[in-house]
Amino acid sequence: MGDEIILLDFWPSMFGMRVRLALAEKGLKYEYKEEDLRNKSPLLLEMNPVHKQIPVLIHNGKPICESLIIVQYIDEVWHDKSPLLPSDPYQRAQARFWADYVDKKLYGLGRKVWSTKGEEQETAKKEFIECLKLLEGELGEKPYFGGEKIGFVDVALVTFSCWFYAYESCGNFSIEAECPKLIAWTKRCKEKESVSSSLEDPHKVHGFVMGMRKRFGIE
Amino acid sequence: MGDEIILLDFWPSMFGMRVRLALAEKGLKYEYKEEDLRNKSPLLLEMNPVHKQIPVLIHNGKPICESLIIVQYIDEVWHDKSPLLPSDPYQRAQARFWADYVDKKLYGLGRKVWSTKGEEQETAKKEFIECLKLLEGELGEKPYFGGEKIGFVDVALVTFSCWFYAYESCGNFSIEAECPKLIAWTKRCKEKESVSSSLEDPHKVHGFVMGMRKRFGIE
Repeated sequence: MGDEIILLDFWPSMFGMRVRLALAEKGLKYEYKEEDLRNKSPLLLEMNPVHKQIPVLIHNGKPICESLIIVQYIDEVWHDKSPLLPSDPYQRAQARFWADYVDKKLYGLGRKVWSTKGEEQETAKKEFIECLKLLEGELGEKPYFGGEKIGFVDVALVTFSCWFYAYESCGNFSIEAECPKLIAWTKRCKEKESVSSSLEDPHKVHGFVMGMRKRFGIE
Repeated sequence: MGDEIILLDFWPSMFGMRVRLALAEKGLKYEYKEEDLRNKSPLLLEMNPVHKQIPVLIHNGKPICESLIIVQYIDEVWHDKSPLLPSDPYQRAQARFWADYVDKKLYGLGRKVWSTKGEEQETAKKEFIECLKLLEGELGEKPYFGGEKIGFVDVALVTFSCWFYAYESCGNFSIEAECPKLIAWTKRCKEKESVSSSLEDPHKVHGFVMGMRKRFGIE
């Protein structure tokens, strides 16, 4: 009996892309359902009544919400192929810490970089770069955050890389000039089919962000 | 060879109390070090350079930060006694979801209840009660969120109960009138020595909150 896997998602979401990437790493087939966030489907509202947000993974009829929780679920259910979390409890805690850091700090700062202007944007840009530098320091000389292979933190962070061009364009700065090793890491990740097939085109994301700025009256 | 366990904490912290409770459930002895958050110790800054926050668990010299990550770490290292996360991946994902909900929603709303006034406070109070009712619904007719025994969500939520009196006093409302089953659950939890010994006295927490309100110029 095969597993029925449905993903409720919205294409530019870095959170949704995490789930697509985790499913690709595990080699799982699934049905992708695009959501219109301005007109959410009855299925989304039924499956995530608390947050009403994507991504939602529906596995054999049962919903799992919140991207990092979904990625851990996928890793626990299909644990034999491409384990994402390390087996050592201390290393697991460290991986959870950095993934949580990406959610708590990087996401909000990145949003400020594209959705504000003037001094507010300058401050956000500075903090955003500090945040990336801290992550670059954590990567160190390892090929991946997970060590020799892609792991939980790689999955949590690499999906932001298709937003980099939009951040840079809105903030008028170069992430590569600030964090060359982090950019080298994103390129290394994208050499993997599971990653490149899960990430959206940065120019398409840029177009989406420009549309949002217009709607928010930022230009 | 025994384990060396040190906890950097601040007594009224519901996040710190989660760790004390998890350690108590596992029957672990540890050294408690109280932090002065207005004058953080060099040890805290060294062990949690990213967030510079308590609680930090230092296990054989190695730091683990962020309360829910620490509780999961404790549960994974000392997994034989009083397991907190369920063994089924779907149930684990659900437990993580509700613990995350407590962090994302309940904490911030509770803070608004005691640190604001007027209309802002009224709105926060309404949302805070909605949030508790949603949690009460999730508890349902089970004795604990974890089922027949205390689990991850119980640990994540029950430490807020010693703040309830402060919330009620600042917001002029009764949580028991709104959520009688949730209050019955807190009482059930406190019958356990591991819980009662880990939670602070609500009147002492109330005194602390009153001091904070004064410092913030709220009265």
